[in-house]
Amino acid sequence: MSSLSSAQLRLQAISGHLNSSSGSPALSALIPAVKLDQNILSVLLDGEDQTWRKWTFDLLKDPLFAFQYDLHRNDAVILNQKRHEKLTAMNVRPKWNEPMLPKHYAIQDALTYYDNALGTMAGAHFVLYSGAIRELGSEELKLKYLPAADSFKVRGCFALTELGHGSNPRGIETEARWDPREKCYILHTPTTTAQKYWIGAALMTAVNAIVWAQLYVPNPETSEYEHYGIHAFVVQLRDPKTFEPLPGITIRDCGTKSGLSAMDNGRIWFDHVKVARDHCLNKYGGVNEQGLYESVFTDKDARFGGQLVNLSEGRVGIANATRNLAKVALTTSIRYSLSRRQFGTRNLGEPEQLIMNYNLHQRRLYPLLATTYAHHFSSLRLLELKKVAKDNPKKTKEFHMASALTKAFHSWHLLDTLQTCREACGGQGMKSSNRIGNMKADVDVMTTYEGDNHVLMITVAKGSIGDYTPKKMPALASLKNTFQVGNVSDSTILSAEWQLAFFEHHVLCASQRLQAALSASRQEQNARGGEIESLDQLLDRHAALSQEFSRALAEHWILKALVEKETSDPNGASLTLVRQMHALWKIENDPYMLRRRYLDVEVQERVSNLVSAVLQRVHENVNALVDAWTVPDHLLGTIAGDWVRANEPDAQ
Amino acid sequence: MSSLSSAQLRLQAISGHLNSSSGSPALSALIPAVKLDQNILSVLLDGEDQTWRKWTFDLLKDPLFAFQYDLHRNDAVILNQKRHEKLTAMNVRPKWNEPMLPKHYAIQDALTYYDNALGTMAGAHFVLYSGAIRELGSEELKLKYLPAADSFKVRGCFALTELGHGSNPRGIETEARWDPREKCYILHTPTTTAQKYWIGAALMTAVNAIVWAQLYVPNPETSEYEHYGIHAFVVQLRDPKTFEPLPGITIRDCGTKSGLSAMDNGRIWFDHVKVARDHCLNKYGGVNEQGLYESVFTDKDARFGGQLVNLSEGRVGIANATRNLAKVALTTSIRYSLSRRQFGTRNLGEPEQLIMNYNLHQRRLYPLLATTYAHHFSSLRLLELKKVAKDNPKKTKEFHMASALTKAFHSWHLLDTLQTCREACGGQGMKSSNRIGNMKADVDVMTTYEGDNHVLMITVAKGSIGDYTPKKMPALASLKNTFQVGNVSDSTILSAEWQLAFFEHHVLCASQRLQAALSASRQEQNARGGEIESLDQLLDRHAALSQEFSRALAEHWILKALVEKETSDPNGASLTLVRQMHALWKIENDPYMLRRRYLDVEVQERVSNLVSAVLQRVHENVNALVDAWTVPDHLLGTIAGDWVRANEPDAQ
Repeated sequence: MSSLSSAQLRLQAISGHLNSSSGSPALSALIPAVKLDQNILSVLLDGEDQTWRKWTFDLLKDPLFAFQYDLHRNDAVILNQKRHEKLTAMNVRPKWNEPMLPKHYAIQDALTYYDNALGTMAGAHFVLYSGAIRELGSEELKLKYLPAADSFKVRGCFALTELGHGSNPRGIETEARWDPREKCYILHTPTTTAQKYWIGAALMTAVNAIVWAQLYVPNPETSEYEHYGIHAFVVQLRDPKTFEPLPGITIRDCGTKSGLSAMDNGRIWFDHVKVARDHCLNKYGGVNEQGLYESVFTDKDARFGGQLVNLSEGRVGIANATRNLAKVALTTSIRYSLSRRQFGTRNLGEPEQLIMNYNLHQRRLYPLLATTYAHHFSSLRLLELKKVAKDNPKKTKEFHMASALTKAFHSWHLLDTLQTCREACGGQGMKSSNRIGNMKADVDVMTTYEGDNHVLMITVAKGSIGDYTPKKMPALASLKNTFQVGNVSDSTILSAEWQLAFFEHHVLCASQRLQAALSASRQEQNARGGEIESLDQLLDRHAALSQEFSRALAEHWILKALVEKETSDPNGASLTLVRQMHALWKIENDPYMLRRRYLDVEVQERVSNLVSAVLQRVHENVNALVDAWTVPDHLLGTIAGDWVRANEPDAQ
Repeated sequence: MSSLSSAQLRLQAISGHLNSSSGSPALSALIPAVKLDQNILSVLLDGEDQTWRKWTFDLLKDPLFAFQYDLHRNDAVILNQKRHEKLTAMNVRPKWNEPMLPKHYAIQDALTYYDNALGTMAGAHFVLYSGAIRELGSEELKLKYLPAADSFKVRGCFALTELGHGSNPRGIETEARWDPREKCYILHTPTTTAQKYWIGAALMTAVNAIVWAQLYVPNPETSEYEHYGIHAFVVQLRDPKTFEPLPGITIRDCGTKSGLSAMDNGRIWFDHVKVARDHCLNKYGGVNEQGLYESVFTDKDARFGGQLVNLSEGRVGIANATRNLAKVALTTSIRYSLSRRQFGTRNLGEPEQLIMNYNLHQRRLYPLLATTYAHHFSSLRLLELKKVAKDNPKKTKEFHMASALTKAFHSWHLLDTLQTCREACGGQGMKSSNRIGNMKADVDVMTTYEGDNHVLMITVAKGSIGDYTPKKMPALASLKNTFQVGNVSDSTILSAEWQLAFFEHHVLCASQRLQAALSASRQEQNARGGEIESLDQLLDRHAALSQEFSRALAEHWILKALVEKETSDPNGASLTLVRQMHALWKIENDPYMLRRRYLDVEVQERVSNLVSAVLQRVHENVNALVDAWTVPDHLLGTIAGDWVRANEPDAQ
């Protein structure tokens, strides 16, 4: 339609209109002016070599990837599948027996900008289904199933969740009983709540499934069934030609959902289905040729934890995707706000004010922009930690904690960002072609799948409280006044060191408070002579303090990742402004931090002034900060470009 | 399927399982136990006579109103229309020339529990289209258009918003030029940004439209066109038989949206369309028989304000609908949480803990339950104020302020509530048959239509700041220590008087801070000798303080409405617990209140303890509190009933 790109048109439209005088001179004196370079930022974010990133974005220009919104959900599933067939044909990922190369990381990262349905379909098939076989299966099973899975010709699903058990998979009811005469497992759904639920790809597309069940094996002496905990089995669900369920298997719809329609979720029942002995994923345990149970673990829970490592991998994927979808929404709404005018004049015909020039609007979008930068680096940090933990079991716990808190905080941040961007764009935020509202519906599930965020955060509190035992910690009283000092300078408040120390102080204080509350409860229960509650119960009794502690850990972990990049990279100073925006906004607005009054009244007031000053500096650099994300036009909402022309009566 | 109602089944399921010992004895001593009566609460909420409420809920049992989610958006529009035809046939509202009776108020209120698409379609047609003719049109126009509109046989739409002007309708570009020779108005869309946008019912169903345009009339002496501001015209868009647009009128789709698919939004262009002189809604101004402009107002803006009064009526409708949809979501998720178990046992087979027994879960849902109670009474207060303002122009401003802040706060609260309920139900929250996720998509637009919430809140700040001029106010210094006292007792903190005084104190302090900032800026600008900014500009310069002030006003207004009911009704004491929950939660968690440190550290700590104690009392009474809302089973999500049975393989 036009010989100018939409980016050029946008630049033409806004050139010279950015109102840098909206802040006051007094404010701008608080922090020196900077001029950020989009190229330097882009390299900090996505590295020097962006070849494969660009290759992927170009691939997504294929008409097959044009966003479609008016589809019936079955058609949406089929289209999603076709897109994956294309991606598979383009070799976007390594074969099952090949390592992930930097190229593959770059491609996978670039694909997450597309939408959450693409990633969810890939995650269910490649990470959960293939991943389980790869991590836990025998060589024979790998050879039998993984080449076909790699080609995406035989789809698989991951059947762990049941109607009655989501967040607590240890309680699943599906049974696998070893039958010594038939020499096979008998897989069975004993109750309505034991039906497999939300199983992605089960409704229409999966031929095979990894099915998780409680294993029972008869004691050879007493013949009584003994319980060995949860194990996984490779089970064929359907005839690969007719797609009819095999005998003994019932599959039903999970029904229409409020998002992620392009994923066909199904429910599955097993009626005494036979599973061959060699189809148990037996890395950690299973029935041997003699019909006896064998395991490398003695503890059932430890075994189950080991089996579920690829769920943590799913969390890494979510943490990564969230920050890229946040970039799509923020780029769209900020660019729109840089070309959309409203109010600011009394006379008809005079140009109104760009909405991005309003302080009110800046306060809505810029803190989210800054936190999205922070999340970029925390998800990179998580990815590194995953690689380290693979070879170093000592890092496993740190990785699990980090994957839980990152997944929770990143997905909540994405939802906040999408909601704010939706409203900041007015009605346009709901128009599907602008992506924001539809992304919101599709990513909503991120807050509860692969672990409910609140439950994950409690896990983090539980897993971390031991790192802050009273022995290792200064007393709360001695901590208390550390930050309550008035003689701190503005430049100190703006420094990475002070901000990180503030966040760490918050962790220490929150930990102290929680520890004190837990031990008071224990003492009280002791004195009453009753049963002492479990740590889980105690943490829930002090739910507000547990939340405060786990949130403090998450905030600290995320800021630390950003500061590490800022201080270790030769060009890291380009991140100073967003780090200041991110951290000071939290210090100014986080109710958990505010309630503890870490700062003098006067210093807290100065934090607010500095927030206003930093907002102004972000505003002056907003084009560089957004453009550095290099989200291509075809993945943005229409209003990010020339939205007026796109709304001509006969425009497409 | 079952001889027991789902409510009975639910009671059966949870009877005796409510764990009232989850809190500690120390906590429960802080506040006396209460036993709330659902019937007393129900009468407080919805009055003695609930005949018409029940009649309406029964009407919604008609299969026509069975929720359907898999529809293409065109089919959703048609179904929505059919539902309205049925409602119209059942005389759910008075004729245009009849007054609203208590019966009609009760029916309209009950209908809002259904969904937002029903209300939006009714609002666009009856409130905006018919309402504009009724309020602003001549007797001839009323007789010509309103009977047909009442029958819903000839649909109308309300064409105010344009691509370029939403929140600031004063800037619309559509022109109506008086043609003295033809003796008619010539309606024209001069630019792409002047196209009418988001016009509900324009795409498929509306035959007529109220079109708003800038009026230009030639000066009879100079023949030059003079501008008279915005006026409204009744314009026929389509042939009522073929539904083809009339000559000169172009209609286009607004495209797929992320919610409210059952509303057909369209875009409209006018190419020199002739509109008869008598089709101007001329209550406040228009061209007379002599071809001269005549108006009862001299100021264009005052005239426009008068014309738009039915937009405020739309806000009243939104404020009302939000609290009822919040009840649907909370009833669904709380009842589910009272029958859903997860965690809390180490041994397979032992019953797990009801999720509603977790403090963490209570902290997510109960404060929202309490605020929903508060919003019930604030929307009733708004409705009263609307009636009062109709006969008393002195109350008009108060009504406009109240409608703006109520609409903004209620719609944000509804979105928060839906998001929290969605997550609290896990994946079930996204299943359409549970309503929550789909409601979220459909109500999202409430935060920006009928006025963007943030813009409305700035209007509130601007309109109210004059009520708190320095002359009328104590100095900030003298205010500062009013609440910073340590010797306040727990029972005082729990009292309505203290809590309302706290909220009012917050308003006064916020106003003082804003006043001080505004006058400092004015002085500074004066001293620099430059132009003094307008109040709008100054309020945006101090956006954080403006927000704080307008939010404080909203919080105070809402609490006041609840306290008034609590203290004036003979049974008002039944509302004490939810008022305590609502107000103390804000005092504990609102960052604006926290930042100002109104309370001593020790008192703030006690507030947190009291919050925990109040949560426990709410938990003990949660069945009564939820059941008092009397949301019928057929309007709740499936999981509110026997969700296990509903998930049997062959259940529908």
